[in-house]
Amino acid sequence: MQLKVYLSGEIHSDWREKIIQGCEARGLNLSFYSPVTLHEASDAAGDVLGSEEQSFWRDHKSAKVNAIRTRTGLEKCDIAVIRFGDKYKQWNAAFDAGYCAALGKPYITLHSKDIVHPLKEVDTAAQAWATSPDQVVEILEYVIQ
Amino acid sequence: MQLKVYLSGEIHSDWREKIIQGCEARGLNLSFYSPVTLHEASDAAGDVLGSEEQSFWRDHKSAKVNAIRTRTGLEKCDIAVIRFGDKYKQWNAAFDAGYCAALGKPYITLHSKDIVHPLKEVDTAAQAWATSPDQVVEILEYVIQ
Amino acid sequence: MQLKVYLSGEIHSDWREKIIQGCEARGLNLSFYSPVTLHEASDAAGDVLGSEEQSFWRDHKSAKVNAIRTRTGLEKCDIAVIRFGDKYKQWNAAFDAGYCAALGKPYITLHSKDIVHPLKEVDTAAQAWATSPDQVVEILEYVIQ
Amino acid sequence: MQLKVYLSGEIHSDWREKIIQGCEARGLNLSFYSPVTLHEASDAAGDVLGSEEQSFWRDHKSAKVNAIRTRTGLEKCDIAVIRFGDKYKQWNAAFDAGYCAALGKPYITLHSKDIVHPLKEVDTAAQAWATSPDQVVEILEYVIQ
Amino acid sequence: MQLKVYLSGEIHSDWREKIIQGCEARGLNLSFYSPVTLHEASDAAGDVLGSEEQSFWRDHKSAKVNAIRTRTGLEKCDIAVIRFGDKYKQWNAAFDAGYCAALGKPYITLHSKDIVHPLKEVDTAAQAWATSPDQVVEILEYVIQ
Amino acid sequence: MQLKVYLSGEIHSDWREKIIQGCEARGLNLSFYSPVTLHEASDAAGDVLGSEEQSFWRDHKSAKVNAIRTRTGLEKCDIAVIRFGDKYKQWNAAFDAGYCAALGKPYITLHSKDIVHPLKEVDTAAQAWATSPDQVVEILEYVIQ
Amino acid sequence: MQLKVYLSGEIHSDWREKIIQGCEARGLNLSFYSPVTLHEASDAAGDVLGSEEQSFWRDHKSAKVNAIRTRTGLEKCDIAVIRFGDKYKQWNAAFDAGYCAALGKPYITLHSKDIVHPLKEVDTAAQAWATSPDQVVEILEYVIQ
Amino acid sequence: MQLKVYLSGEIHSDWREKIIQGCEARGLNLSFYSPVTLHEASDAAGDVLGSEEQSFWRDHKSAKVNAIRTRTGLEKCDIAVIRFGDKYKQWNAAFDAGYCAALGKPYITLHSKDIVHPLKEVDTAAQAWATSPDQVVEILEYVIQ
Repeated sequence: MQLKVYLSGEIHSDWREKIIQGCEARGLNLSFYSPVTLHEASDAAGDVLGSEEQSFWRDHKSAKVNAIRTRTGLEKCDIAVIRFGDKYKQWNAAFDAGYCAALGKPYITLHSKDIVHPLKEVDTAAQAWATSPDQVVEILEYVIQ
Repeated sequence: MQLKVYLSGEIHSDWREKIIQGCEARGLNLSFYSPVTLHEASDAAGDVLGSEEQSFWRDHKSAKVNAIRTRTGLEKCDIAVIRFGDKYKQWNAAFDAGYCAALGKPYITLHSKDIVHPLKEVDTAAQAWATSPDQVVEILEYVIQ
Repeated sequence: MQLKVYLSGEIHSDWREKIIQGCEARGLNLSFYSPVTLHEASDAAGDVLGSEEQSFWRDHKSAKVNAIRTRTGLEKCDIAVIRFGDKYKQWNAAFDAGYCAALGKPYITLHSKDIVHPLKEVDTAAQAWATSPDQVVEILEYVIQ
Repeated sequence: MQLKVYLSGEIHSDWREKIIQGCEARGLNLSFYSPVTLHEASDAAGDVLGSEEQSFWRDHKSAKVNAIRTRTGLEKCDIAVIRFGDKYKQWNAAFDAGYCAALGKPYITLHSKDIVHPLKEVDTAAQAWATSPDQVVEILEYVIQ
Repeated sequence: MQLKVYLSGEIHSDWREKIIQGCEARGLNLSFYSPVTLHEASDAAGDVLGSEEQSFWRDHKSAKVNAIRTRTGLEKCDIAVIRFGDKYKQWNAAFDAGYCAALGKPYITLHSKDIVHPLKEVDTAAQAWATSPDQVVEILEYVIQ
Repeated sequence: MQLKVYLSGEIHSDWREKIIQGCEARGLNLSFYSPVTLHEASDAAGDVLGSEEQSFWRDHKSAKVNAIRTRTGLEKCDIAVIRFGDKYKQWNAAFDAGYCAALGKPYITLHSKDIVHPLKEVDTAAQAWATSPDQVVEILEYVIQ
Repeated sequence: MQLKVYLSGEIHSDWREKIIQGCEARGLNLSFYSPVTLHEASDAAGDVLGSEEQSFWRDHKSAKVNAIRTRTGLEKCDIAVIRFGDKYKQWNAAFDAGYCAALGKPYITLHSKDIVHPLKEVDTAAQAWATSPDQVVEILEYVIQ
Repeated sequence: MQLKVYLSGEIHSDWREKIIQGCEARGLNLSFYSPVTLHEASDAAGDVLGSEEQSFWRDHKSAKVNAIRTRTGLEKCDIAVIRFGDKYKQWNAAFDAGYCAALGKPYITLHSKDIVHPLKEVDTAAQAWATSPDQVVEILEYVIQ
């Protein structure tokens, strides 16, 4: 059984690479999907369809294009890993968690201890809370071994 | 047709009352549901089941109890209004938005203009973005008139 | 058993009133829902949320607000009646028919004979094709008698 | 991840070939499906089951056979592209859009600017509106890169 | 809790009346739905939409109209009772049983012992096989008491 | 909002009455459903359909009849309370818990502390674990207040 | 795109072989599934689990085992072909048709003209009615070409 | 057609190996999945995420991690085999049976005759009750042959 893992959330650190490399090092039969993680590219996803004067509609158009990719990723994955970093609002990460919860799709949160209280609804609906990519790798290995 | 409206998100201002009173003043056939909006009561929702030494598990237990109410509200409502205030992380509000999106449940966001960019995924999946309770009342009246 | 009937499509003739009055005259236990049928109001549905310079985004915003009403109507109804008039593109009517088909929701089309060929996919997925409001009333009476 | 793309709508220009060739030129891992695009063959899809005297029932029978193919395509695809040309009613294209919307299936519309207003409901429920096959190719590349 | 009971199948004996009267005599909180049980009216259900020369299409048109009523009945009921008499093919009754099975809707079959073998798939997917209306009444009372 | 509560599990103590009376004493807007709780009646649920020589098939027939009631109760309820007593296997209670979990239906377990370890999968999928009917009443009041 | 075709119904003629060979001769990318078509084996499907004295329960046990295969076939297929022969009740074929209809799964009926009237509900919910295996092959080729 | 079989339940005997080897010996095209069957590893599944002082929360955390694997197995399988041994409560096995039942997923129970009565609800919702791994192998061969 190959499992599909969607890596949602923070795009400013190398947590995705660490998880992917850790799983490859252990030879786990997993495939990984992510949103577009280059901030500028993501914000510009809709520009090809024509420029917008108002930033609200530019955002709107790009978010719609990005959603093709992120929704497909969420719908197709077996497990999501949702990362909250120490900066920014990251409402899209929490949005993805709620999306998974409604679909009954298991997800693992990855974040440091200091944001445990504001993330309590998100963590409670999760199957696991990890604080390091290594822990995520160990959980994935356990699940698929 | 009576519609059910779930009022999710910020609990530190009187936006719920304004929407409810505005709709009542116009005689709209709507019923409203909310999470428990008293912060202390919400954090203590699981205490009746036994005290916990670790705050993580106290949060976890309370969040599970609160989820009985919030999930039922989200599943039963016809429309959700999701409010983001100017303080706190409010990841639970974004979580509820994602939950609605996955269910195909229409929702309206309510927040000020300065957080438009970080909320772009949440707003794009919404049916409307309002900046005041009055606007929400107008939309609800239009929908149910 | 009371059935809910959603009346979708053309807004430039009085077919809705004829169906509703015909059913009332026969004492049928039906309730009726419709989109907002005043063209100007429908186009302006999103204006309360702020004016738009570009007509594309004004349309977009209004269509999103209207969709709260139309999707709720489609999701809640037991039967839809979908009317195609002799003018305009009426793609929203065909869109509603496809929406019903995907939900397995029975619908009746109402249109004149001269547009039978271009509507063949829409008619085939329908449970009945009527050419007059009276025929729709007769079908509804048969279904609920 | 290979994605499946269903190409719905207009059958009188070579937009399908342009998209397919554009994606192949970029080496995208996509597979494409379409309805039968030869008009005469489509109208005659049911003739093998016996001839019909009345054109209505010939249409009906052929539309049912075609629906085996089109529904399967819509149900199986990850993304639909729905093309509206400058001629004909094209209600089947709008029907497919509504079908996608009800399934929560992302779709991209492809049409010129002059039909933006009558397509507003269809475009609003879409994830993107493109005016050229090249733009569709760019979006697909962004989504799958 | 009021339960809705759909009475499907044979239309040539008074088994429906016996069940309804038996339940009323015991004061059970049940509501009952049925297809149109007058054979001629059922065959003519589509005639109001225009006469057909070919009996196949007359049947087709009437069956589509009848399906509005029967599908609604099956989708809305909590329990179906499906009666097989001693005459006719009654494929529509078996069709309704399969429809219930796919929806996970519980149903009770009502038929005499001599057709047990050909009905084995239908009976096995049922929650109960009764040989008399009285037994059905007893089961319904047990379920709702 | 009235909520429906299904009371599943142990039938040898008066926990159901305690919960119902506790909720009535507080004036909570809840309605309660249960399986047939008289052991002999439950085992004999299918006897009206004819006696069976083999106890396996008598059990089978009665379990099928009981399932009409229990599945309807589980499908219709908003919240289930699932009680494990200190005797018997009670596999049907765990079965109901799994059924709720698959439907995404929130449930509360009610059992003493000494069976926490063997019930860990059942408790983890629950929204709350209570040790007394009073605690269940408090949770229900919190959820519906 | 490979499509899966489930061949349901009559087991006393070689219609399955004709369809499979016809499709192979044309090189169609189809895979075929069937129930166990040896009557004696089908009736004895449950015997391995222990013999039964009563034929009703032997049938019941075998029908349950057969249902593992037939339900899996129906759930997994893209298209079903449902054959009604000129003998026997064939209620299981009509049951399968109803099962497909409830799932929104397209099916083709295959039967001679003389049973058109009793099969009207089954045929109307079908996408096509064929009278020969060759016609089925032609339809399948059209759908997948 | 390859079928996926999930082997749920008792972990103290070699029934899984017997089924897998029996199916391999017959060359059946089946793939098998199981929960982690090493008791100590299963109880420690969550330890990597940090140790817990209270056994309740250690169990809770581990059960959540195990559920990623078991739910995925149940959701993906075509058939489940659920084994009840002669020791322990095995509520998780009954939970899995209920989970399958709610999903409409066919399952086979495997247990000795002496626990037939307490398992009556679980067995009735099953497609077959086997008393030996060999019988399970025979059923699987029949289903997939």
